[in-house]
Amino acid sequence: MQITSETLERAVEQLARLPGVGRKSAQRLAMHLLKQEKEQVQALAQSLSDLKEKILYCSVCYAVTDQDPCPICSSAKRRKNVICVVEDIRDVYVIEKTNEFRGTYHVLGGVISPLDDIGPDDIRIKELVRRISEEKEEKVDEVILALNPDAEGEATSFYINKMLKPFGVSITRIAHGIPMGTELEFIDEATLSKAFAGRNAF
Amino acid sequence: MQITSETLERAVEQLARLPGVGRKSAQRLAMHLLKQEKEQVQALAQSLSDLKEKILYCSVCYAVTDQDPCPICSSAKRRKNVICVVEDIRDVYVIEKTNEFRGTYHVLGGVISPLDDIGPDDIRIKELVRRISEEKEEKVDEVILALNPDAEGEATSFYINKMLKPFGVSITRIAHGIPMGTELEFIDEATLSKAFAGRNAF
Repeated sequence: MQITSETLERAVEQLARLPGVGRKSAQRLAMHLLKQEKEQVQALAQSLSDLKEKILYCSVCYAVTDQDPCPICSSAKRRKNVICVVEDIRDVYVIEKTNEFRGTYHVLGGVISPLDDIGPDDIRIKELVRRISEEKEEKVDEVILALNPDAEGEATSFYINKMLKPFGVSITRIAHGIPMGTELEFIDEATLSKAFAGRNAF
Repeated sequence: MQITSETLERAVEQLARLPGVGRKSAQRLAMHLLKQEKEQVQALAQSLSDLKEKILYCSVCYAVTDQDPCPICSSAKRRKNVICVVEDIRDVYVIEKTNEFRGTYHVLGGVISPLDDIGPDDIRIKELVRRISEEKEEKVDEVILALNPDAEGEATSFYINKMLKPFGVSITRIAHGIPMGTELEFIDEATLSKAFAGRNAF
């Protein structure tokens, strides 16, 4: 594209660095933006620039936020004695959508994954331990582990369980089983075993 | 996402407006950018902003360019008497890659498409007619139509042919036929018919 415009070429190169965007898609996106109103393109550019200029990490739960502590950690309505541990900020949003959970979060920012060279010190486990161990007006009663049910999530759950045991806090885990609205015949064996093992009184 | 950060929510909303990017992908892209170096994100934002700040349309061929006239139209090496008509600037780049064509271009900026409410006046056909009719040192000898071989491309080719006929310029069309490197059995009937109709002496 530098044949007629360096500027266009630069935009295509930058867009092609995004995950899942190849050179052809980047060209398509750049052409689309060229046809948009200037205000619209500026709004996009500004919002991306703001991502690094304005966003902080909450010093309590490590959620991305515009103010520290984040609205959840600073809300008087949230129970500070229950902490839900998640991998990623997106998990916070998914859980918030249910409108069921009234405690606070702890965002690990990843899971232990030896294959990707991510150890316990690369995610915010120390920070979680500090939150549990600190002397505060409100003691933490329960830590709910809500990590993904894959090998890395399981390993991380086990590790956190080991680290928090000494503090005598109750450690729970969200239930794994049959998702609502599906049919049994489409469920994989691992999920079905979990569902049987975790059966409840009716 | 506004639960903890308006800034993140705004970026997700803006990214989700891009064609082919849904809300989930927009979240993924925003999270990816959050993890990048500040310089990298600023380079992306700046390159998008530049798209509307720095890019012009060549006043001769209507290609996007950083300077007017564009490098192709202002090059002494390009033959001004041959004009290749294309739908989109991307077609210019594809043709330039072949390193075969030494004439100049005319970018229509679309094709006639009644279903999308795009008529002859919405694309740069008037401008093409003006280029052909104008008194210039170098007369246009040939107009090569290189539009896509679909209904809209065909309709646009026919319309341009009708408009340019009075000027006595030679109007040609790129060949449609079997693409190189494919096997006949995988070719659709329409292409095969075109290939037979357009057969050449061996």
